[in-house]
Amino acid sequence: MNNFTFYSPTFFAFGKDTENEAGSYVKQFGGSKVLIHYGGGSVVRSGLLDRVKRSLENAGIEYRELGGVKPNPRSGLVYEGIDLCKKEKIDFILAVGGGSVIDSSKAIAAGTLYDGDFWDFYSGKSRIEKALPIGTILTIAAAGSEGSPDSVITKEEGMFKRGASGNVLRPKFSILNPALTQTLPAYQTAAGITDIMAHLHERYLTNTKEVEVTDRLIEALLLTMVHEGPRVIADPNNYEARANIMWAGMMAHNNAVGVGRSQDWNSHNIEHELSALYDCAHGAGLAVTMPSVFRYVYKHDVMRFAKLATRVWGVQMDFDDLERTALEGIDMFERFLKSIGMPTTFGELGAKEEDIPKLVDMLCYGDGRDGNLYGFVKLSAEDCTRIYKMMVK
Amino acid sequence: MNNFTFYSPTFFAFGKDTENEAGSYVKQFGGSKVLIHYGGGSVVRSGLLDRVKRSLENAGIEYRELGGVKPNPRSGLVYEGIDLCKKEKIDFILAVGGGSVIDSSKAIAAGTLYDGDFWDFYSGKSRIEKALPIGTILTIAAAGSEGSPDSVITKEEGMFKRGASGNVLRPKFSILNPALTQTLPAYQTAAGITDIMAHLHERYLTNTKEVEVTDRLIEALLLTMVHEGPRVIADPNNYEARANIMWAGMMAHNNAVGVGRSQDWNSHNIEHELSALYDCAHGAGLAVTMPSVFRYVYKHDVMRFAKLATRVWGVQMDFDDLERTALEGIDMFERFLKSIGMPTTFGELGAKEEDIPKLVDMLCYGDGRDGNLYGFVKLSAEDCTRIYKMMVK
Repeated sequence: MNNFTFYSPTFFAFGKDTENEAGSYVKQFGGSKVLIHYGGGSVVRSGLLDRVKRSLENAGIEYRELGGVKPNPRSGLVYEGIDLCKKEKIDFILAVGGGSVIDSSKAIAAGTLYDGDFWDFYSGKSRIEKALPIGTILTIAAAGSEGSPDSVITKEEGMFKRGASGNVLRPKFSILNPALTQTLPAYQTAAGITDIMAHLHERYLTNTKEVEVTDRLIEALLLTMVHEGPRVIADPNNYEARANIMWAGMMAHNNAVGVGRSQDWNSHNIEHELSALYDCAHGAGLAVTMPSVFRYVYKHDVMRFAKLATRVWGVQMDFDDLERTALEGIDMFERFLKSIGMPTTFGELGAKEEDIPKLVDMLCYGDGRDGNLYGFVKLSAEDCTRIYKMMVK
Repeated sequence: MNNFTFYSPTFFAFGKDTENEAGSYVKQFGGSKVLIHYGGGSVVRSGLLDRVKRSLENAGIEYRELGGVKPNPRSGLVYEGIDLCKKEKIDFILAVGGGSVIDSSKAIAAGTLYDGDFWDFYSGKSRIEKALPIGTILTIAAAGSEGSPDSVITKEEGMFKRGASGNVLRPKFSILNPALTQTLPAYQTAAGITDIMAHLHERYLTNTKEVEVTDRLIEALLLTMVHEGPRVIADPNNYEARANIMWAGMMAHNNAVGVGRSQDWNSHNIEHELSALYDCAHGAGLAVTMPSVFRYVYKHDVMRFAKLATRVWGVQMDFDDLERTALEGIDMFERFLKSIGMPTTFGELGAKEEDIPKLVDMLCYGDGRDGNLYGFVKLSAEDCTRIYKMMVK
C-alpha cells in the first residue's frame, strides 16, 4: 500500500426529512449570509427550494439565490456566482441539487477567495488553498461530490471539461435524504448508478499490489449497485434501495475505499470529451465508454479483471482461460448497464464517428495536455482513437 | 435504513515513517503544550517515544509525559492524567500506543474540561460535550479507537468496565504506520485481528432490514481479515498484510460501515466482564465469547447467519437446512480464531466456572444496569449464565 493521507471531515445527515434542518446546520458551520445555488425546475416544482428557504429563515439566516446550473456545469455561471458572492459578501454556499450543482458551488467557493481567474485551478495553473465553506442538499445519487474534494467544470470557450480538487472544497455538511431522489426519472437514476460504478472501477484499476482491503471495499460497493440498481429501476419509490445507493454513492467517491493505491480515471477522461461535445448525461457517456476501455486494457492485468468478474459478477473462474473469465465479466457489466436502460453505443449518445479526430485532439492535446493519458495503462492519441472507434460498434 | 448522522473528521496520515510528522500535525491542529500518553516498555524500547519527542521539539512544542497505561486501562491513571493536564495547562493530548492508550487519553481529554467526576460519562450520568483535542500514533491494529468517538475504561473500585462516546473524542489526527505494528507478538496481533472482527460482527447483527450497502461493506472487511490474518501470523514482517489490517481496523470502527442500522454489542458487554475480572486480552476474551453468543442467538435470524456463512466463510448454502448453513459459518469462524492462536474456551482465559454468578451479577446488575442486555437479542441474566456456561465446554 502506498503512503497516503485521508481527510473526510464532512458532517452527514442522512434520512427522511433531514433537509428541514438545513438552517441549523448552516448556522452550526458558521454561515450567516448564504448563496443558495441550484439547477432548474425540479427543486422548485417539488417545493424543496421553498422548504430550504423556510429552514434558513427559521434559523435567522439571510440568503441570495442563483439558479440555472445545467448538467455538465459551465464556467459562465461560475463567473456570475463569483461576482455575486463578492458583491453580496456571501460567507457560505448551500448547494441544492446533484453533482453539477455541487461542483459549480465548489468552483464559486474557491473562485470567490481567489484573485485570479478561477479556471487556473482547473487548468492546473494554480492549487486551491482557500474556499468559502459549502453545504449540500443532495437530490441525485451519482457524482459523490457531496463527500469529495473534487469538482468538474466545462469551460465554454473551447468546451474543455476539466477537474480540480482540494480538501477545502469538501462540504462542511451534506444532507442526504433518499426520498428526494425518488422523483428522478429512470434514465437519470440509471446514469447516476453508472457514475457511481465508474468511480468504483476507476479505483479498482490499480497498479498497486496487495491492496486487499480496498479491493474488497470497492467490490462490496459494486455488489450493492448490482443488487440495488435493478430494484430502484423497477420501483422508483423503493426508499430502501435508494438509501443503499445513496450511501454507496458517497462511499464510492470520498476515497475511503481508494486510499493508498494508484487509480485509473481514463474512462472519465475519455468520457468527459463526449459529454462536453454532445452534452449527454455523464453517466450515459460512461456506460458507452467503460466497456470499450476495459476491453482495450484488460490484458495489462488479466488477473485483476478475472477477480472483478468472479467476485462481483459471479462469473465461474475458467482456470484454463483467464482471458475468457476477464472478458465475461466485462460483457456482464455491459449487459447490466443495458438492462437498467443505459446506452452502450456511440450513436445512442448522439456521437458521430467523424468527430473522433476532434474528440481525440481535445482529449490528448487540449488545454496543455502532452498527447497521452496516464492511468492504469498509458494511452496515446492512437490508443484513444481506437477506443472511440470500438464504441461505434 | 434508519436516519443517522455520520461525522468522522479525523485526519489520517498512513504509511512508513509518518510518525516523524507528529510535531507538525500537533501544530496544525492547534496544540502548543502536549501531554504524551503511553503504555510501557515497547514504545520506549523501540525508540518510538524518542522519535516522537524529537518531532515535537523540532516543531517547537512543549510536552509533558504520562506513561504506564495498562491493557484494559484503569480509572486511577485517568484521574492522575486529569490532574496533570489541569496543573500543567495542557492543551493537546498525544496518545502513543494502542486502543488502551487512546481510550485512556480520551477519558483524560474529556475529564480535564469537566467539573465533576469523569466516571459520570462512563456510568451514563453525564454526556461528553467538551474535551481537549487529541492526536494518536497507533501501534496496534485492533480497537479502532484511532478513528472512533468511543472510549472504554475500567473503574478500579468494583472493576466495572464501561464505555463512553462523544464526537468531540474523535482524534484530530491519527498517524497509522503499519511498520510500527511489526514488532507486536503473535498473540497480541491475533487478539487485535479478533477485536476488529468483533467490531464487524457487532454491526452485522442487526434487526434493520434491507441494509445491503453496510452488509456488503462489513463482509468486505471480514473477508480482508480472513485473507490477511493468517498471512501476518505466518510472517509478522509482512508490511502489506499489516497495512491492509490497519486500514480495515479503522474502517471497522469509525462506523462508516455501521450507519443507519441497529447494532448488537452484546458480545462486547459479555466479554468486558471477563477482561475486567481476569485481565485477559480483550481480543482473546472475544474469541471465547463470540462463537457461544452466536450459537445462542442465531435462531433469531437464521437467514442473516446463513448469509454471513456463505458470503464470508464460503460455506455452501444448504437450501434444505438453513440452520446447518448458519452453524457451519460459526464453526468456521471459531476454527479460524483457533488457527491464528486465539483461545476458544473459558479455561484458556484463566476464567473459572464458579465465577459465573459473579460475572453475570456484574454484567446484568452492575453500575445501575436493569438485569438485561439489549442488542440483536435481549438477553436476561439467565441467558447470560447459559452463554458463559457454553464457553466452559
